[in-house]
Amino acid sequence: MIIIVAKNIIKEGMSDEFKRLTKELIVESRKEEGCISYVLHEDINNPCILTFIESWTDQKAIDFHNTTKHFTTIVPKLSAIAKEASQVNLYKAL
Amino acid sequence: MIIIVAKNIIKEGMSDEFKRLTKELIVESRKEEGCISYVLHEDINNPCILTFIESWTDQKAIDFHNTTKHFTTIVPKLSAIAKEASQVNLYKAL
Repeated sequence: MIIIVAKNIIKEGMSDEFKRLTKELIVESRKEEGCISYVLHEDINNPCILTFIESWTDQKAIDFHNTTKHFTTIVPKLSAIAKEASQVNLYKAL
Repeated sequence: MIIIVAKNIIKEGMSDEFKRLTKELIVESRKEEGCISYVLHEDINNPCILTFIESWTDQKAIDFHNTTKHFTTIVPKLSAIAKEASQVNLYKAL
């Protein structure tokens, strides 16, 4: 299993738009065969910090996810309203 | 429920020491009443990035956790071998 933590810092006032845009991404990603979980989180102290915590069966599932229509069309829209590049880390649990 | 993501970047060659030091912290934290999960993760591309993903029932449980002997004695030892201050975010799932 691979856990992805993808932290996004959104431009002031654009958090609701980010959440709106991610709705379809979340629904479609959860349908993918290798997706174990895919949850968006909001920082309780700063609504401009929105972080995905995702679990995938393996790297092959992630590679496929990155080519899907929902990923390739929605992620650029998310990047456009982000304050800086998202921090993405892929982890194994110890 | 509150999810904590605590990302640590460890000094070169000190990752094994970090993992050794966290063993007791993990065991003792999991025994706490408000702890739902407490798992250390290693970045699959960089063994110097070690991140806790934790789930707690509420803020009260986290406040208590921060006062425990295992937290107050072990966390400073972890900070001493970190390259920079850890990034800690508290989240609610959306």
